[in-house]
Amino acid sequence: MIRKFTFGTPFNTGAVVRPEIAEEESASKLPFLTIVQNKVASRDDAGEDDSVIFSYRLPDEALVYGLGEQARGLNKRGWRYESRNTDNPFQNEGRTALYSSHNFLIIDGEERFGLFLDTPGYVEYDIGFTNYDELKITVKDGGFDLYLIEETSLTGICRALRRLTGASYVPPKWAFGFGMSRWDHKDADEIREVADRYRALDMPIDMMYLDIPYMDDYMDFTVSEERYPQFREFNAELAKKNIHLVPIVDAGIKKKEGYPVYEEGREKGYFCTKEDGSEFVVGVWPGASVFPDALNPEAAHWFGLQYKAYLDTGVEGFWNDMNEPSIFYTEDALQAAFRKVAEYEGENLDAETFFEMRDVMGGISNKTAYYKDFYHNVNGKKVRHDRVHNLYGSALTSAAGEALRELSPDRRTLLFSRSSMIGMHRNAGIWYGDNSSMFSHILMNLKEEMNANMVGFLYSGADTAGFGDQATPDIALRWLELGIFSPLLRNHSSRRLRRQEFYLFGMDEAFRGMLKLRYALIPYLYSEFMKAALRDEMLFQPLAFVYEDDERAKHIEDQAMVGEAVMIAPVYEQNAVGRYVYVPEKMRLFRFRSPEDYDTEYVEKGDYFIHVALDEVLLFVREGHALPFADTKGVLSTADLDYGKLKALKYDEAPVEYELYNDDGVTREIGEEKIRKIVL
Amino acid sequence: MIRKFTFGTPFNTGAVVRPEIAEEESASKLPFLTIVQNKVASRDDAGEDDSVIFSYRLPDEALVYGLGEQARGLNKRGWRYESRNTDNPFQNEGRTALYSSHNFLIIDGEERFGLFLDTPGYVEYDIGFTNYDELKITVKDGGFDLYLIEETSLTGICRALRRLTGASYVPPKWAFGFGMSRWDHKDADEIREVADRYRALDMPIDMMYLDIPYMDDYMDFTVSEERYPQFREFNAELAKKNIHLVPIVDAGIKKKEGYPVYEEGREKGYFCTKEDGSEFVVGVWPGASVFPDALNPEAAHWFGLQYKAYLDTGVEGFWNDMNEPSIFYTEDALQAAFRKVAEYEGENLDAETFFEMRDVMGGISNKTAYYKDFYHNVNGKKVRHDRVHNLYGSALTSAAGEALRELSPDRRTLLFSRSSMIGMHRNAGIWYGDNSSMFSHILMNLKEEMNANMVGFLYSGADTAGFGDQATPDIALRWLELGIFSPLLRNHSSRRLRRQEFYLFGMDEAFRGMLKLRYALIPYLYSEFMKAALRDEMLFQPLAFVYEDDERAKHIEDQAMVGEAVMIAPVYEQNAVGRYVYVPEKMRLFRFRSPEDYDTEYVEKGDYFIHVALDEVLLFVREGHALPFADTKGVLSTADLDYGKLKALKYDEAPVEYELYNDDGVTREIGEEKIRKIVL
Repeated sequence: MIRKFTFGTPFNTGAVVRPEIAEEESASKLPFLTIVQNKVASRDDAGEDDSVIFSYRLPDEALVYGLGEQARGLNKRGWRYESRNTDNPFQNEGRTALYSSHNFLIIDGEERFGLFLDTPGYVEYDIGFTNYDELKITVKDGGFDLYLIEETSLTGICRALRRLTGASYVPPKWAFGFGMSRWDHKDADEIREVADRYRALDMPIDMMYLDIPYMDDYMDFTVSEERYPQFREFNAELAKKNIHLVPIVDAGIKKKEGYPVYEEGREKGYFCTKEDGSEFVVGVWPGASVFPDALNPEAAHWFGLQYKAYLDTGVEGFWNDMNEPSIFYTEDALQAAFRKVAEYEGENLDAETFFEMRDVMGGISNKTAYYKDFYHNVNGKKVRHDRVHNLYGSALTSAAGEALRELSPDRRTLLFSRSSMIGMHRNAGIWYGDNSSMFSHILMNLKEEMNANMVGFLYSGADTAGFGDQATPDIALRWLELGIFSPLLRNHSSRRLRRQEFYLFGMDEAFRGMLKLRYALIPYLYSEFMKAALRDEMLFQPLAFVYEDDERAKHIEDQAMVGEAVMIAPVYEQNAVGRYVYVPEKMRLFRFRSPEDYDTEYVEKGDYFIHVALDEVLLFVREGHALPFADTKGVLSTADLDYGKLKALKYDEAPVEYELYNDDGVTREIGEEKIRKIVL
Repeated sequence: MIRKFTFGTPFNTGAVVRPEIAEEESASKLPFLTIVQNKVASRDDAGEDDSVIFSYRLPDEALVYGLGEQARGLNKRGWRYESRNTDNPFQNEGRTALYSSHNFLIIDGEERFGLFLDTPGYVEYDIGFTNYDELKITVKDGGFDLYLIEETSLTGICRALRRLTGASYVPPKWAFGFGMSRWDHKDADEIREVADRYRALDMPIDMMYLDIPYMDDYMDFTVSEERYPQFREFNAELAKKNIHLVPIVDAGIKKKEGYPVYEEGREKGYFCTKEDGSEFVVGVWPGASVFPDALNPEAAHWFGLQYKAYLDTGVEGFWNDMNEPSIFYTEDALQAAFRKVAEYEGENLDAETFFEMRDVMGGISNKTAYYKDFYHNVNGKKVRHDRVHNLYGSALTSAAGEALRELSPDRRTLLFSRSSMIGMHRNAGIWYGDNSSMFSHILMNLKEEMNANMVGFLYSGADTAGFGDQATPDIALRWLELGIFSPLLRNHSSRRLRRQEFYLFGMDEAFRGMLKLRYALIPYLYSEFMKAALRDEMLFQPLAFVYEDDERAKHIEDQAMVGEAVMIAPVYEQNAVGRYVYVPEKMRLFRFRSPEDYDTEYVEKGDYFIHVALDEVLLFVREGHALPFADTKGVLSTADLDYGKLKALKYDEAPVEYELYNDDGVTREIGEEKIRKIVL
């Protein structure tokens, strides 16, 4: 059952596609939550204190799930979180917000219910941070809809959210292959060379990503002639090898005379403006830039259609970045900072004054205050950005997704974004932004998969082996041992750091074994993914969602269920020779070094310390289950997978009926009719 | 066996006090290690490439211990570390250096040996970072001594290091009590109030720390008349309640006419200078400041004698901060930054140029380059700071420790420092600097205790509940459940963050239970600490050091042995209802909520998931062991502990002989003769 409670005048975020399945009720009838303050902010002019505040008493044993992309645990108790999309690469426990806002919570205690706040503005969730036994939600920046979801099961609550907000995005099958990325891969020759080296070592790969240097002076929808001469031919050359090029698209448009995208957008009034209607100029990668007005439907559609420039070269996949939006500086703030610093010169600075001065310049990037400095044109109405901030990247990417359906009606395109909200999950996937090569981030990655799935982002993943900081041979391998289960498997890293292509660590056999294992699993992963998308289910699930009556399973945050048949338990500590695993029912354990090299044993329900050598990964098959398993001999890309030669990983010898989803991997038409029952 | 190998002309760091126990050998006879480069740098003029590089092949199963204060694991394999003392509050996996340099390693593989590099300069340890199977050590910045230690046991190697470098510092017994600290405790009234609130809630406390605001304008050896009028009387008032005030002492001396410490130091030439002999001026807390020349023995002694100003008010404890030394800016760098920023103004900045400009100002603090800008006067010889950098805080604190022995010959003083090297462990303890209120830092804290003990810092501890970031009720409690075993137990936090006095979380009973448990354990902790100090042993030990033949114990990094009788296994995950524990031999498990409220059971050797409620702590007593346990009824400080009423925590009913060290807690004379055998 879904009930809708409206506060003030909500902004249409586009998240809800089936409003009819929610029953509208008066806010006075809101169950569970207490409204402790009801000063609905106006979208136009909200006072400091204007907000609606909800409170809920958390019993000791209650767990709280949800919020999608956040840097902490599955159970959200004991911290505060914000819906405030931000580009801040330090992902750690101290963070309250990352790039996305996913306003969905599940309270699982004496009472069980889900909560979806449909608002593009700021929300704070104090989940036992201030008072251990109180959940307090503060909604600012305008009216909103609150959807209250009651279902008997945890998965039921997630399913209901998806029914309300629409089915999840489905990428092409090749997007389940492995992709390599690096900020400073410098040109076509290097891209070719990296792909060839993987292939030469019998390591399968499907995608090469292009980060910002592929553009001409960081101008969206251009390609550097110097670094990628004859881009169309280059793309065709790689396509022949079943390698897909996946370029980045940034939110900011370079302010440059003669650059057609800028000139056309300016002419048509498609960019965000200052209050007086003048151009709002910020500094991002191309230097002085403007933002396409993602909340102006016409402007957003126009921006989406620009992707045609790349489609015309044969490209079929994209990643959208910098769309929180990230702002290195605003033109106005930069001028003010110069003036301010000059004022301090010659003064005798005490420490506090010095910090103030230092931070005027040092802290100039990504200030929340900038979001008050520019405006959108929403159906003719001027809306200040901060009131709708969290929707920006989501709206821009959704517009791209819709335009891509128009431009490529028969073939799916790959599209994922750094910033997102619920609703965008219909049009694109996400990656979790700029993580680091830290072992703790392997565990964070695992939790993110489950959290992202709850809010509909089935196609998602982290930068495997870590974006920031230095990767080591062992972290790359351990991380890949988790990444092989993630729909989006991409090795991506920052410039000026150690290179982390998997063939660089002197452990080719181990990395090859894991990459081959990934490809052996693709028939299962793709099938489970497609069924989850069709049925509004999750691919990655917490154990608590599957074993609801198991008290221990409730608190397991470092294992996951992947599809119907598999449990995983990655190693995420350096120098570990194994790890503890809670086995919630009798399972068959496979300890893989490669698809052909493994050992296996049965494990009863219980707790175990299980040895896992550096080149090994644990895969548990549930009792009575089986999964299809591809032969990977000679397989160098998803195109090489031979469904005629499927093998199986089975719990035991007994035949198992399995619903296999398969198709050509590119057609936009998907449906239950493509599922066939096979016996494994 | 200890052998000494000399490279070039070493700098006398004062670390080694018994050179005669090492046999001097020619570098050509160096066992185990291969010298891959032998360009010994000169202390005066080292070329870019001048360094001695050692290499060692690490067999797959070899572990590497050591390096003292570092942000990662017990086993150091798979990362690179630097000896390069630095003030950087982001303590995470990405770090290669913290505040201290402890140049001691143990290689534990087919071959087992210890390695102590006696050098004040830069060292890099690549421990399987670049190549998984290679240890590579690069020593720069001048000649040095390498001590090679061969002993059969891991503890034997640590003991040998201590014999070579001297016995560990011993604080007064009251320093084993609980201490409360907060950057912005603002004045005497607040200090009194905080102490009183603890006491009123029957929560024992022995120390109130004074952070920088207690000084007059951040001038060392002064007290603010405004905030602490009649400081001597205030101190006496608290002393009557058995509360010790522990003020902070920073490295930088305010450059201010009329400030006697500055004027006297300048007159005598006791401050660091630029190359031309002029004053080297930096910005730290007092604004423009100078550094006492810690490497000029006369200057260092003079600085140490300044502590008399506080001793005269009745103070008997100090913490030395900012002594890496931390540098917010140098006067020269600040002027250059102003000029540089002005140059950029009006230019059309592309992203890279913008970052450059932003970082000129934003990245001005604690640049390594500053260490080339100033000089020490070492026995009449000018030595550039960067060549001896890591010794600075250590030398300054050791000088203070020595002066305090002179000034207070009969009574011990409490002294600990943020920056340190091996050698300083004879004169002071350490805390691990600016950690954060993160669950991952509880585990880091546990590892730090063991790592610090290996290099002789027995009196050590972390800021319990975390210095930076927001503390939550549960992190404060979980952290205290580790802190109660740490010799230095201090709750300290930064300004502008949520207050974290333990009585503020609405969980008084749980916090009281843990604080009381701490005091119940003091007879054991003090006794084990004193015996470890007398016998050159460790108080906190890895399981691997105690159960050398146990393959599993080798890889346990989240449990510790505390003294001869106890194993601990703290919970360091939020919302956890328990944790996995490896029990290496049959033990008796106590699950404490307070000294009186616990349950207990026997656990056989093996792996367990053990439930631990939020208000509980696990304490395992080894078979055949017992520990003294104080009655804490009415106990509000260490002075209230009644050794006449000692109880015992015992493995079983059988009487156990225990060596109890006790004394008046303040006398400087300590010795084996104060140990008496008691039967528990």
